[in-house]
Amino acid sequence: MSPLLSISRRTRRTPFTDRVTAAGVTGYTVYNHMLLPTVFKSITEDYRHLKSAVQVWDVSCERQVEIRGPQAAELVQMLTPRDLSEMRIGQCRYIPIVDETGGMLNDPVAVKLDEDRYWVSIADSDLLFWVKALALGFRMAVDVFEPDVSPLAIQGPLADELAARVFGDEVRKIRFFDFRTFTFNGAELAVARSGYSKQGGFEVYVEGGRHGEPLWDALFEAGRDLDVRAGCPNLIERIEAGLLSYGSDMTRANTPHECGLGRFCDTRLAIGCVGRDALLRVAREGPLKQIRYLEIEGDPVPSCPEPWAVTVEGEPAGQITSAAWSPDFEANLAIGMIVRDWWDQGTKVLVHTPAGPRTARIREKPWL
Amino acid sequence: MSPLLSISRRTRRTPFTDRVTAAGVTGYTVYNHMLLPTVFKSITEDYRHLKSAVQVWDVSCERQVEIRGPQAAELVQMLTPRDLSEMRIGQCRYIPIVDETGGMLNDPVAVKLDEDRYWVSIADSDLLFWVKALALGFRMAVDVFEPDVSPLAIQGPLADELAARVFGDEVRKIRFFDFRTFTFNGAELAVARSGYSKQGGFEVYVEGGRHGEPLWDALFEAGRDLDVRAGCPNLIERIEAGLLSYGSDMTRANTPHECGLGRFCDTRLAIGCVGRDALLRVAREGPLKQIRYLEIEGDPVPSCPEPWAVTVEGEPAGQITSAAWSPDFEANLAIGMIVRDWWDQGTKVLVHTPAGPRTARIREKPWL
Repeated sequence: MSPLLSISRRTRRTPFTDRVTAAGVTGYTVYNHMLLPTVFKSITEDYRHLKSAVQVWDVSCERQVEIRGPQAAELVQMLTPRDLSEMRIGQCRYIPIVDETGGMLNDPVAVKLDEDRYWVSIADSDLLFWVKALALGFRMAVDVFEPDVSPLAIQGPLADELAARVFGDEVRKIRFFDFRTFTFNGAELAVARSGYSKQGGFEVYVEGGRHGEPLWDALFEAGRDLDVRAGCPNLIERIEAGLLSYGSDMTRANTPHECGLGRFCDTRLAIGCVGRDALLRVAREGPLKQIRYLEIEGDPVPSCPEPWAVTVEGEPAGQITSAAWSPDFEANLAIGMIVRDWWDQGTKVLVHTPAGPRTARIREKPWL
Repeated sequence: MSPLLSISRRTRRTPFTDRVTAAGVTGYTVYNHMLLPTVFKSITEDYRHLKSAVQVWDVSCERQVEIRGPQAAELVQMLTPRDLSEMRIGQCRYIPIVDETGGMLNDPVAVKLDEDRYWVSIADSDLLFWVKALALGFRMAVDVFEPDVSPLAIQGPLADELAARVFGDEVRKIRFFDFRTFTFNGAELAVARSGYSKQGGFEVYVEGGRHGEPLWDALFEAGRDLDVRAGCPNLIERIEAGLLSYGSDMTRANTPHECGLGRFCDTRLAIGCVGRDALLRVAREGPLKQIRYLEIEGDPVPSCPEPWAVTVEGEPAGQITSAAWSPDFEANLAIGMIVRDWWDQGTKVLVHTPAGPRTARIREKPWL
């Protein structure tokens, strides 16, 4: 049985919380000290709708770390092993961020607003503290703060149609991980083609909480015949899509290479980011374990609130950190960290679920 | 109606979660990415029991930032405006931590384990990121990490009796905010006289998750005739006691002086902590608003999930951030930030609650 969530100012409400409540949210998590919906009707019903229509998601908890000033670009590059020298205004980049030993601190999306102004749209850790202290320690000419920006996602196969009705047809031309600015309610809002699903869609960076409810209402008004509904990142769909969750599938203990994010680490690492020395070592030796996808045999397993051990012939072979029954694939799909000896496609392993040990097979790629 | 909390690896379980579940927890919050119980029977029933017997609290979410190495003391002093030059091994100190502009980042308790080894027992923000980045930026000879330490609190008027039965009578001699080390289950555990209530008691720093359930079980076995129960920080009692909640009653926007923590800021500030320059300015001018306690007239008000405006004759006079009906004081008690013109004892203000505007009176001290 799920317990109730006690809400206080500390578990911050968002500009959309009243609308989300009216739409019948039934489950929440707390993400960056803020409410993030997890369920409306049921995870399965939300899933079917997400994959067939269009949803509006309150992802305000993707808080922004704004970095502004003459050394903004220099500081952003110091934060990540990904080479950002070619990044242009109007682009977004997924940037793993590591500490000095190469341990993952966050896996945010950087948004280049101007030559001297960035947002870093964060996963669930107080990256603001890391960036502020680095700026202080290295005496950089930047201002670092959390602006009043609350992303609202439009996700699903009908997302382009819905967004075009509200922002105009120009929105269809936005390329993946680019953003363009649109006027809504008298405000200039950045709209990016991005989101935490593989169903397509946008994230609107709602700058100024007062624009939240008007935008929400405009989307629902415009999308009535599209069966637009309130939704949220969906556990089943994000596992099908192989989208990792920082804090669940990876933690500070993991390197980007273990997370399958080695391709975002510039092999020359000439860029002098924090963690460079450790990551050069890691890149040379390769990881000893890595994120893999698994199909677990048998009846539906429960979700995975704490890691499940994976073994092969009684020996430790890794752990599962996310799992769900997929109606579309008619199988239990899972994400886990698997040791090198057993991580090849098709390898048979044993997963120790609360429903008992189950046979599972390794996949190198996700399902979507 | 409270929504359900969705639990994942990201909302970390604790060494005590199975025991807490068996004890009938009904409400949780998420604190430092970890489960923190908020309700067992009801907030009022839990409150009456806390004030009359003894409870065991899973406060594992008070995570530790361990700072170890030749420059550990130097770094801890850099973190806080409180003068720690007289702090001895075996002592705990409440240390406000601010950024370079004097904004509160956390209000943890520092625990001095050795001359070159400290724990910082944190409120709800990733202080680890701040400390690690400062250590990196200022190139300090320290190791900074989150150890496997999960505090378990013993709180209530019978706490001394219960703790003595498990740890021996020596535990009674521990002075407020001191700690001593006791052997339990073959491990050396630090036991401090501290806790987030005014009912008296201890916090046991359970180092090594495997000692969690044996300690929990030993406390319940030893305390059967004391009516020991599982409990948690109680909203009503902590407001009566005037205990602030970081993230609710104070945020990064506030200085220590606004939070009534000016007495922890060394007026000379010769110690060169982060934020020194800003706090010297603040100390000279005094805060424009400050934490106050209020009694709100009329029927019980609901709890305060987002700030309630406070006005005087239609003018903004501050905000309420925590509120609860107190059965013992037969009144609505509240904590808020009140502007200088209206913060004197006895001043009448108007609080805009969801149940309508209510008259309230300012208090300079809490109730317990």
